[in-house]
Amino acid sequence: MRPSGRELNQMRPIEIEVGFTKHAEGCCLIKVGDTHVLCTASLEERVPPFLRNTGLGWVTAEYGMLPRATNTRMRREAASGKQSGRTQEIQRLIGRSLRAGVDRNALGERQITVDCDVIQADGGTRCAAITGGWVALRLAVNKLMKAGDIVTDPITDHVAAVSCGVYAGQSVLDLDYAEDSQAGTDGNFVMTGDSGLIEIQASAEGATFSKTQFAELMALAEQGVADLVTAQKIATS
Amino acid sequence: MRPSGRELNQMRPIEIEVGFTKHAEGCCLIKVGDTHVLCTASLEERVPPFLRNTGLGWVTAEYGMLPRATNTRMRREAASGKQSGRTQEIQRLIGRSLRAGVDRNALGERQITVDCDVIQADGGTRCAAITGGWVALRLAVNKLMKAGDIVTDPITDHVAAVSCGVYAGQSVLDLDYAEDSQAGTDGNFVMTGDSGLIEIQASAEGATFSKTQFAELMALAEQGVADLVTAQKIATS
Amino acid sequence: MRPSGRELNQMRPIEIEVGFTKHAEGCCLIKVGDTHVLCTASLEERVPPFLRNTGLGWVTAEYGMLPRATNTRMRREAASGKQSGRTQEIQRLIGRSLRAGVDRNALGERQITVDCDVIQADGGTRCAAITGGWVALRLAVNKLMKAGDIVTDPITDHVAAVSCGVYAGQSVLDLDYAEDSQAGTDGNFVMTGDSGLIEIQASAEGATFSKTQFAELMALAEQGVADLVTAQKIATS
Amino acid sequence: MRPSGRELNQMRPIEIEVGFTKHAEGCCLIKVGDTHVLCTASLEERVPPFLRNTGLGWVTAEYGMLPRATNTRMRREAASGKQSGRTQEIQRLIGRSLRAGVDRNALGERQITVDCDVIQADGGTRCAAITGGWVALRLAVNKLMKAGDIVTDPITDHVAAVSCGVYAGQSVLDLDYAEDSQAGTDGNFVMTGDSGLIEIQASAEGATFSKTQFAELMALAEQGVADLVTAQKIATS
Amino acid sequence: MRPSGRELNQMRPIEIEVGFTKHAEGCCLIKVGDTHVLCTASLEERVPPFLRNTGLGWVTAEYGMLPRATNTRMRREAASGKQSGRTQEIQRLIGRSLRAGVDRNALGERQITVDCDVIQADGGTRCAAITGGWVALRLAVNKLMKAGDIVTDPITDHVAAVSCGVYAGQSVLDLDYAEDSQAGTDGNFVMTGDSGLIEIQASAEGATFSKTQFAELMALAEQGVADLVTAQKIATS
Amino acid sequence: MRPSGRELNQMRPIEIEVGFTKHAEGCCLIKVGDTHVLCTASLEERVPPFLRNTGLGWVTAEYGMLPRATNTRMRREAASGKQSGRTQEIQRLIGRSLRAGVDRNALGERQITVDCDVIQADGGTRCAAITGGWVALRLAVNKLMKAGDIVTDPITDHVAAVSCGVYAGQSVLDLDYAEDSQAGTDGNFVMTGDSGLIEIQASAEGATFSKTQFAELMALAEQGVADLVTAQKIATS
Repeated sequence: MRPSGRELNQMRPIEIEVGFTKHAEGCCLIKVGDTHVLCTASLEERVPPFLRNTGLGWVTAEYGMLPRATNTRMRREAASGKQSGRTQEIQRLIGRSLRAGVDRNALGERQITVDCDVIQADGGTRCAAITGGWVALRLAVNKLMKAGDIVTDPITDHVAAVSCGVYAGQSVLDLDYAEDSQAGTDGNFVMTGDSGLIEIQASAEGATFSKTQFAELMALAEQGVADLVTAQKIATS
Repeated sequence: MRPSGRELNQMRPIEIEVGFTKHAEGCCLIKVGDTHVLCTASLEERVPPFLRNTGLGWVTAEYGMLPRATNTRMRREAASGKQSGRTQEIQRLIGRSLRAGVDRNALGERQITVDCDVIQADGGTRCAAITGGWVALRLAVNKLMKAGDIVTDPITDHVAAVSCGVYAGQSVLDLDYAEDSQAGTDGNFVMTGDSGLIEIQASAEGATFSKTQFAELMALAEQGVADLVTAQKIATS
Repeated sequence: MRPSGRELNQMRPIEIEVGFTKHAEGCCLIKVGDTHVLCTASLEERVPPFLRNTGLGWVTAEYGMLPRATNTRMRREAASGKQSGRTQEIQRLIGRSLRAGVDRNALGERQITVDCDVIQADGGTRCAAITGGWVALRLAVNKLMKAGDIVTDPITDHVAAVSCGVYAGQSVLDLDYAEDSQAGTDGNFVMTGDSGLIEIQASAEGATFSKTQFAELMALAEQGVADLVTAQKIATS
Repeated sequence: MRPSGRELNQMRPIEIEVGFTKHAEGCCLIKVGDTHVLCTASLEERVPPFLRNTGLGWVTAEYGMLPRATNTRMRREAASGKQSGRTQEIQRLIGRSLRAGVDRNALGERQITVDCDVIQADGGTRCAAITGGWVALRLAVNKLMKAGDIVTDPITDHVAAVSCGVYAGQSVLDLDYAEDSQAGTDGNFVMTGDSGLIEIQASAEGATFSKTQFAELMALAEQGVADLVTAQKIATS
Repeated sequence: MRPSGRELNQMRPIEIEVGFTKHAEGCCLIKVGDTHVLCTASLEERVPPFLRNTGLGWVTAEYGMLPRATNTRMRREAASGKQSGRTQEIQRLIGRSLRAGVDRNALGERQITVDCDVIQADGGTRCAAITGGWVALRLAVNKLMKAGDIVTDPITDHVAAVSCGVYAGQSVLDLDYAEDSQAGTDGNFVMTGDSGLIEIQASAEGATFSKTQFAELMALAEQGVADLVTAQKIATS
Repeated sequence: MRPSGRELNQMRPIEIEVGFTKHAEGCCLIKVGDTHVLCTASLEERVPPFLRNTGLGWVTAEYGMLPRATNTRMRREAASGKQSGRTQEIQRLIGRSLRAGVDRNALGERQITVDCDVIQADGGTRCAAITGGWVALRLAVNKLMKAGDIVTDPITDHVAAVSCGVYAGQSVLDLDYAEDSQAGTDGNFVMTGDSGLIEIQASAEGATFSKTQFAELMALAEQGVADLVTAQKIATS
């Protein structure tokens, strides 16, 4: 039995509130259960030095967690003077994932920075950040297209992510914190709207896992991503 | 005339939503017009080294701004590796202000850290942070008292803050960003519920100001703080 | 009674020794009682990026304290790898204050950096730094004018600062360390030579303060600044 | 055809030279083709604070690259003042992977730090580091057991890693730099000696990948890990 | 001919003003020509961790330069966030040199930190810092002995330093900045009062130097140190 | 008697293996007894800003030690976020020493960075780094000359270094760690192939040293450097 009483293949409720803040070119507050992430997409009409005069655009991401997003207060990274290894790992993942769904030629020489700030955490923050980050990106690109600054849509597909894991011996979808902290194996799956694989990260915690278990996790992920893509469609329609 | 059409002595609409996130001992999202600050109060049953075995408690504050809380994206302080002088100045002000309304003997040897994170900025973020921070602190202390961990209420009075300034030659209450960026003089006033002065910071930007002008700003501030205290009372009742 | 035996409205002895070191364009060692600050003004024929091609000059300040300027040795900021929040707050204040007395158009596209290094501390170091910093700035500008590099004097007025506070229930002028560490309220007042207000920073330490007390502090400050301006005039004549 | 002329499922030559340096409790220089990594295991009779008095041991890893291990010189991380996100990501992976093959109860309250320093890089440095790091760890534990400090062998199985990817449309084993920099998909697989899965990290670079392709990569990895484990056995026998 | 008109073996005028600031246990302002260094010795009744319970004391040094001690303003190290390699090299030298003249057993488990801050620089700042630092140390130890906290004098001899170099083909004593910046070879010699050698650092700048030249420099240094020791004796008598 | 059984004037065995890694323009692994240092020379066709358009080249060096090069593991400098004072002192010494043997005009506007990474330490790492660093530099310059990029050989002479010290009252050549950690005086001597002096650094540890002792150390150093230069010649012939 899952602590939340959910079915093995049941996602938490998904809510995506667009326009939660007013300044960014694209913005949403995504809630996957009690995990709440504010995602903003900021547009700049310039690219990093390594892309100048290539005609290619860039999408990058930054990730943060408010100090009391978690059950006990964590030290503020700005105060400790550096981003943790975990933070850097996550923001690199978000950036890579979103770029996989973007035609950088069509975007042209501009950069979109997606900031994902966790307001409240209950497991799966990096997956929610990718899913919500895509929505913010979509909205920012919509604005560019509406203004006629871009003609061909540079977004090639939806990008969404979900975590699955082996909890109490069972493969389950969309781990919450209670499950995540106990899971024997934990995997994050980033996929496109048509089930193309973008990124897989699966880790044994304690025991190793088998190919069969891994296949179960991947199947669950495919289901979960489908739900997330549906929510993205509703939010951005 | 003010860009927002407000009267010279008119505050922006004030909203305080308590319990916006679930983990902190006290939490509110304060909105003063388009300035939105998430304030959480986190309790620890230990004090900084300089207070050990003194019987005294401590209240401290940290301040941050999400990168796209502002009109153009600012660099994330965690990424640049340090808090700016402005950030440190503000969080020191918030901490001092809140401590002025706390009986640290009655609090006992425990620390409450108030985190104020600006979700959306439109001028006056430090004042909103103090006013909302007090609400988060009040809620955290209420919890301690309800649990019987504290007998005498350590909170001696409301603490709230507002900025006033000389805009287009006129003294006005509660500067928004459009006014703040043009104001000749800008002052932040922190006061208690019974109009005791806690902190005054007034600065000439360009021209100097006179004692008469300063007296006008202080009178406006008193009015504004009264409104803010009323909103605090409603939120925490 | 004040620990030093001074009258309530009596400044400490003020000495300003110009030319204490030889390299800087302007230099003085200011002594306000036992608070000794070495101030140098360094001229550069270029401005920060945000001012290029605006025709405007810039005046900025840095502040430091030698490790054993104080009663117990403090950690050297260069060794700890960053300037404290207090240091940054003070140097921002000095810079703002000095700029308030400068016509940046008349200065032209050049920058003057005023370094204020506390050699010995006994309370009121930031006020002594502003007062002495103005002298260093004045001397550096004199040099520019003498050389014919500037035609119109960019210095519009004297700028000086003093701290006042409520000590043992009485409003007193020019707090020394013994008073400052005990004061219930502590204010720093920066004014021009003709009593224009530039910056007010007043803080309750412990109890709040009333509007009447604040008015007393401001009146004392006006007296003190007059003495400081006289000393500036003698030093730079 | 592969740039190196290897078969699709052919590993580069594997050499493991134990005892390359003399101070560490365990040491080897592992060469997988032109990728050379020096791995040392250092024993300390104490654990990090979070494990004190738990009876559990700890295995952790650090990773570095000499500045000219690569084709063009990279900036020294010690000089730039921080480890890059990539470095941190890799050393976290090595540590997690090695811990998956250790019974921390049997190890007891001691810590083994595995340092993996890349002397020469030609693709797959993180996989070589894991494989060589296990050898260093094995040797250090052998020493502990020989000395009678540990009775039950805490190492539960071999741990080795290999990268596979889709190069020029084909799934290939053990990417070298020429392939890695062109690969459409790139995956790192960490496994135990009996083919248990420890960690999978697969990333699309450009195009997404399909479940079929992923299955091919996993099958190749299983073969490669078997070869690596054989080399580990020879080196530590 | 030397730019200053001095003889080849002539020191600059030496002045040592003790008690220049009031808080430190020992303090002097040393002037060697236009090189002025403020030296303070600060006593703490504890030693660094590696000396606890050894009965041995510690003497350490820190070195700094005010930003405008030099002809053009240098960046403040506290602002740039680290001490330069040059600063660290110098302060390590000062500490080693002073420790060479101290019996750490006789000092007992206490630490004396000697801060050397260059107020004005004209060549030879590290040598002036050692010579003046010894005076500050001597004064601080005198205080300890007078108070009866130490019975046996832990200072075994004078320690002083001077730089010599090959300028315009001639060996000269006590290089000033004009000479130092042109010198072909530059050496710093730290000696005791009875000509014992503590530290020699000699460097070729451009051409190499011969053993004969080196012997000339050493002979000059011996003379110079004798003068410095005389000045130390006068200052501390 | 020396711990190693060597004669007082006997060097440890010297081995220089060129081409230990493949990417650098010049590379060797130098072994002086159990001290092993990997030296690489990296060429860039640009110079630091202060040399642009001067026609002069630059040679610089960086130094590092693998964490377990030593008997007990040292903290990795990249992880602690800065290079120690010792590291900076050593790399500045290596750079200065190598530049003393280079005609920067003949080198032309290009930079060669020599990285010296200690793989295994047993005393005298900075001297081995200079000696091996020269070999790497020589090989890189040979490559430039062979390619016709440089016509006149910019290397004017061999540069090599050795440490000597007073161990158990005797002057000995080429201190190993066992001796170094006990030596009363310790000196590093950098010389050219024809016995020109480049750099001397001698330090008393505990007792001072006399001019006679210093002369003995210098004579031993001359012998040692001759051996090192012979080994350099063999390696680069």
